[in-house]
Amino acid sequence: MSIRDNLKRMLAPQHLAFVGGRSMARAFKRCADGGFQGQMWLVNPQHESLEGIPCVASVADLPCGPDAVFIATNRELTLNCVAELALKGAGGAICYASGFAETGEEGQALQAQLLQAAGDMALLGPNCYGLLDYLHSAALWPVAHGGKAVERGVAVLTQSGNFAYNLSMSDRSLPLAYMASVGNQAQLGVAELMDVLLDEPRVTAIGLHLEGLKNVPGFARAAHKALEKGIPVIALKTGVSQIGAELALSHTSSLAGSDALYDSLFERLGVIRVSGPVSFVETLKAAACGRLPAGPSLAALACSGGDAGFIADYAERNGLTLPKFDDCQRADLAQVLPSYANLVNPLDFTTAIWGDRDALENMLESVLRTPADAALLVLDYPAESTGERKECDLLLELFCELLERHGKTGVVTSAFPELLPASARDRLHARGVAALQGIEDGLAAWGRIAQYQTRRRVLLAKGESVLAPICPAALVSEGQLLDEWQSKQALRPFGLPLPEARLCRPEQALEEAEHLGYPLVLKVVSADLPHKTEAGGVALNLKDPAALQSALESMRGNLAKHAPGLLFDQVLLERMASPPLSELIVGIKRETGFGLALVIGAGGILVELLKDSRSLLLPTTDQAIHDALLSLRCAPLLTGFRGGPAVDLPALVRAIRAVADYAGENAERLLELDVNPLLVNAQGAVAVDALIRLA
Amino acid sequence: MSIRDNLKRMLAPQHLAFVGGRSMARAFKRCADGGFQGQMWLVNPQHESLEGIPCVASVADLPCGPDAVFIATNRELTLNCVAELALKGAGGAICYASGFAETGEEGQALQAQLLQAAGDMALLGPNCYGLLDYLHSAALWPVAHGGKAVERGVAVLTQSGNFAYNLSMSDRSLPLAYMASVGNQAQLGVAELMDVLLDEPRVTAIGLHLEGLKNVPGFARAAHKALEKGIPVIALKTGVSQIGAELALSHTSSLAGSDALYDSLFERLGVIRVSGPVSFVETLKAAACGRLPAGPSLAALACSGGDAGFIADYAERNGLTLPKFDDCQRADLAQVLPSYANLVNPLDFTTAIWGDRDALENMLESVLRTPADAALLVLDYPAESTGERKECDLLLELFCELLERHGKTGVVTSAFPELLPASARDRLHARGVAALQGIEDGLAAWGRIAQYQTRRRVLLAKGESVLAPICPAALVSEGQLLDEWQSKQALRPFGLPLPEARLCRPEQALEEAEHLGYPLVLKVVSADLPHKTEAGGVALNLKDPAALQSALESMRGNLAKHAPGLLFDQVLLERMASPPLSELIVGIKRETGFGLALVIGAGGILVELLKDSRSLLLPTTDQAIHDALLSLRCAPLLTGFRGGPAVDLPALVRAIRAVADYAGENAERLLELDVNPLLVNAQGAVAVDALIRLA
Repeated sequence: MSIRDNLKRMLAPQHLAFVGGRSMARAFKRCADGGFQGQMWLVNPQHESLEGIPCVASVADLPCGPDAVFIATNRELTLNCVAELALKGAGGAICYASGFAETGEEGQALQAQLLQAAGDMALLGPNCYGLLDYLHSAALWPVAHGGKAVERGVAVLTQSGNFAYNLSMSDRSLPLAYMASVGNQAQLGVAELMDVLLDEPRVTAIGLHLEGLKNVPGFARAAHKALEKGIPVIALKTGVSQIGAELALSHTSSLAGSDALYDSLFERLGVIRVSGPVSFVETLKAAACGRLPAGPSLAALACSGGDAGFIADYAERNGLTLPKFDDCQRADLAQVLPSYANLVNPLDFTTAIWGDRDALENMLESVLRTPADAALLVLDYPAESTGERKECDLLLELFCELLERHGKTGVVTSAFPELLPASARDRLHARGVAALQGIEDGLAAWGRIAQYQTRRRVLLAKGESVLAPICPAALVSEGQLLDEWQSKQALRPFGLPLPEARLCRPEQALEEAEHLGYPLVLKVVSADLPHKTEAGGVALNLKDPAALQSALESMRGNLAKHAPGLLFDQVLLERMASPPLSELIVGIKRETGFGLALVIGAGGILVELLKDSRSLLLPTTDQAIHDALLSLRCAPLLTGFRGGPAVDLPALVRAIRAVADYAGENAERLLELDVNPLLVNAQGAVAVDALIRLA
Repeated sequence: MSIRDNLKRMLAPQHLAFVGGRSMARAFKRCADGGFQGQMWLVNPQHESLEGIPCVASVADLPCGPDAVFIATNRELTLNCVAELALKGAGGAICYASGFAETGEEGQALQAQLLQAAGDMALLGPNCYGLLDYLHSAALWPVAHGGKAVERGVAVLTQSGNFAYNLSMSDRSLPLAYMASVGNQAQLGVAELMDVLLDEPRVTAIGLHLEGLKNVPGFARAAHKALEKGIPVIALKTGVSQIGAELALSHTSSLAGSDALYDSLFERLGVIRVSGPVSFVETLKAAACGRLPAGPSLAALACSGGDAGFIADYAERNGLTLPKFDDCQRADLAQVLPSYANLVNPLDFTTAIWGDRDALENMLESVLRTPADAALLVLDYPAESTGERKECDLLLELFCELLERHGKTGVVTSAFPELLPASARDRLHARGVAALQGIEDGLAAWGRIAQYQTRRRVLLAKGESVLAPICPAALVSEGQLLDEWQSKQALRPFGLPLPEARLCRPEQALEEAEHLGYPLVLKVVSADLPHKTEAGGVALNLKDPAALQSALESMRGNLAKHAPGLLFDQVLLERMASPPLSELIVGIKRETGFGLALVIGAGGILVELLKDSRSLLLPTTDQAIHDALLSLRCAPLLTGFRGGPAVDLPALVRAIRAVADYAGENAERLLELDVNPLLVNAQGAVAVDALIRLA
């Protein structure tokens, strides 16, 4: 059986074992109390029974290899236990012990032994909290948890056991199908778990709490699979800050990579990134507790002007639209609402009809006729002690009823998170209506999910998500710099447009210039002088032989001063490019774990003012390059600025494509590449300077 | 007695009256149950008693004019009642009835009568939910509320009764001293209430939920008073979106003004703006429940690497710093924490010492030695049913004890908002430690409050907050445009630097040019042609008489074509300005309710790419202009870009000051002013074009 098949067994277990002492006896009990239907064993060599549960003396004494085993012994015993379980044909083992790769060299060696001992058996951890499986009520978990059995729900994978513990306790009515604390990811990582979880039809969304990814290509494959299936993936990634990135490295030895690259990876794959625990949970609820909306429009209602104001602001901020009511709706609403009511979407239906079943039903009937992708109700429950909750219950009931009658997607949120009580949330979720807590977080969550379907179609059409990132081995050498001429010659065969040029000795320059024609540019060529402009090694716009002659002389002087010892034996003559409509910078960065990233940015003074660049992981597509260009802040300069002509976008895309293709071909040795500037005009583009560093 | 004195009576009442039917009898009871110590009367002409409470037949029959009265009758009876109460010498009346200014002309007339009837008596509303006064347990409130008596706390003013209702119910342990729903603000508005509330020493912070301000100068005075006293003001303003602004207008007839101007008003006055109900409550808690931190540094700890990761990211995002532990601290921590612990700030102290009093105390002892402005603990409680809360209680207890021992400011937050239970929050608040719910919102709230003290000192020194905004009457006319020459002549006496120039007839141009000198600029001058460049009415950089002659001829042709009928009878000759280091746009906008705003922005192509401008309400100071310039995205172009020279900032500030001074002098009639571009160089600045529109 493959690891993948064994993981499938572990995720749908018919029998479980717990290996350890008293705490495992308690875990065993909690699992039984939680309603696990299969067989369970407690393995302990020293006791006949613990906390009233009979013990099996050893793994060898088990009647069969269990589908899933929780091992809570120290790290050395864990190693033996894993080996025995693998022999016995167990499905998967969860290793709770710490002291492996996260602690240094000795631990790394132990972890390698552990991995080997597991063989084809699935292995979660070590240094992890375990697996909560609420589809089968299998709590392979060392401590208490606050969850309960569900019929379908989200799968959460986290690198923090404490985050999992807290999430299981959090009173937010998130239906959890699975939660795994992945620990050191010695064998099973986020990518492998996602891949198998996506085959379980009762998993409705995936939530990831990450410090970093260990297997970017595997993750990309799994995320693409999710995108194809239409299962939203929501990621909360930490390590955004400098200190955070350092912590991630020491905590679970995650190679964090540059945070911006995660943005680019997530964007390519339609992974929805959130910034904190609350938006994580609420976005998962929006994805998993109701029906996914087909688009961003909302018919919205609340019982107060204050709430209507919040809806309007947060809708706009999150890309949600509020189509106007038509005259017929307004006429109907005027029949049922007081004269001072403002008959617009979002509707403040006022408290005048509070508790009036007929009036509420008529009002909802009118509002739900709006041709919107979903209907939103904002409702805050008062404290239970007020005895004023019946009217809220009535409104929710009517809202659900009318949603069903109209076949509409619905969502409910409250201004204050805690004023949508668990009883109301559970009732809503049972009717397929997401109950989001807190109007600001709620509408942000809904906005993300409302964009998801559209975005998914765009991404699948773009064809980038299916391309797993190139992930060549890390290169540690400083590498060797090619000079400008060599760099350009290397790029030319891939189709990078270059100015007409001549490489020659300084003393041949005047003669070569006659063949090339004026005006032209003179540059010194040497891999030892990457910053040639600063050293006075560049002269622009030379209009005639006299100017060239004089430039050659002053260049010799400049170099003698700024770069003493440099041989002035090669110069490049190029036709002067005409003033461009826009200039860009295109580069390749090699990032450990991610492979190669193509960076496209605004050039000239805008580089510093706009900090305007996009990173695309390689390989990429023309469409993705095109979209990246148009998403730059400087895009107005490309599409026809102030009535001027647009740049030659196809030529620009082809030029950038040439850089990407060169990088793809040279992935194993390319350290760094810069084309700066890449000039673009109404007709064509031209790379004026280029520099390549190879290992 | 003045309205202000009567308002003071209403906010510290010794007797209360409720006017109305059964609902007022219940309000009376709730107030009595809440522990109000003074006298109370229920006024109702039709019943001897209601719900067991004896009724007084009329206001005239009351033994004295009550300090505060809640009137819950219809709008016509409300009018009579207010008149009677004023006669009786009551302190203040709260008018619950709607149907006044928010409904149209008839209602506006009634509201004017109401205001007149009140005379010097304080008047809250109409169309409002009332006043909750938890300092005196006076609940002048028509429905249930979830609050309780406090010794000190925050004052919340809101334009939404429902927001107030929900806030009183919300289970977040916000200590409320006062909450007022201000309704239509016929007499008492946000500004007047703030002013008096700031005189109550038990009010520790002010929270505002606004759709718009009715009295900007009054608000500015009150906010400046708060700034001087060091009482943080936190504002949640809606109407950010287009639809939201329209709703605000119809809901409480708030003139919303442009939302960006609120930002500029709040910034000038140190008002902390938040974006939603949760950040509103959490920021108020950060301001009011503990000690205000002196600055942004934190010594931070949590029991997991996941939480430490959140701390690091959210600290950086919110301008909070995490000073490194020194060697001595690290040595001490190494003694008490397991070897795998990472001894950095933020500290993951691990669960290895969970529940171990001595170890926790030693750990805290070391961490609190960090020279930081505050200590932060992240802690999530498990569900009560787990029986695992004792260890959390112990940790909180030790944290508070050691904070006191070290004389340190402390703050506690939880990763998930609901995992910091009310019992823990209450205990922390009693010890002067803010208990913030949700690590993302909690650190954002702390960040705002940590900046407050520094920002307060800067603002008071800048001297802008003390200047109440000029608020001239609104002007409705289209106004009259001055031509470029007139505009420049109007601005010149205020010190706006202009190019040397001659105004003349076209046929005199060549002669005048000899006096002026070349190179020069030729422009047609006419108030009927504001867009002269587009019409071919500008010729730049004319180097000699021949160029001028030819420009004159082609200009005549251009104008005949693009502006037929325009008299070509005046031209402006100006010395060509040398290429600037940077160009800016300076303008004045007239905004209803706000008076005049000085807008400073990046010029040239950056206008459209950077959308880079700052608005300052007038009057303003040189320091504020200077700071606004340096806060522009294009500021690098001003301070010495890529090793180039810096611009002449003092000259630039003087030039902008000239525009502001002209606007101040002409506030009653100035509709619009634009100086575009204002060129600035290493020496001096010069306004190349200017346009003024006057009523």
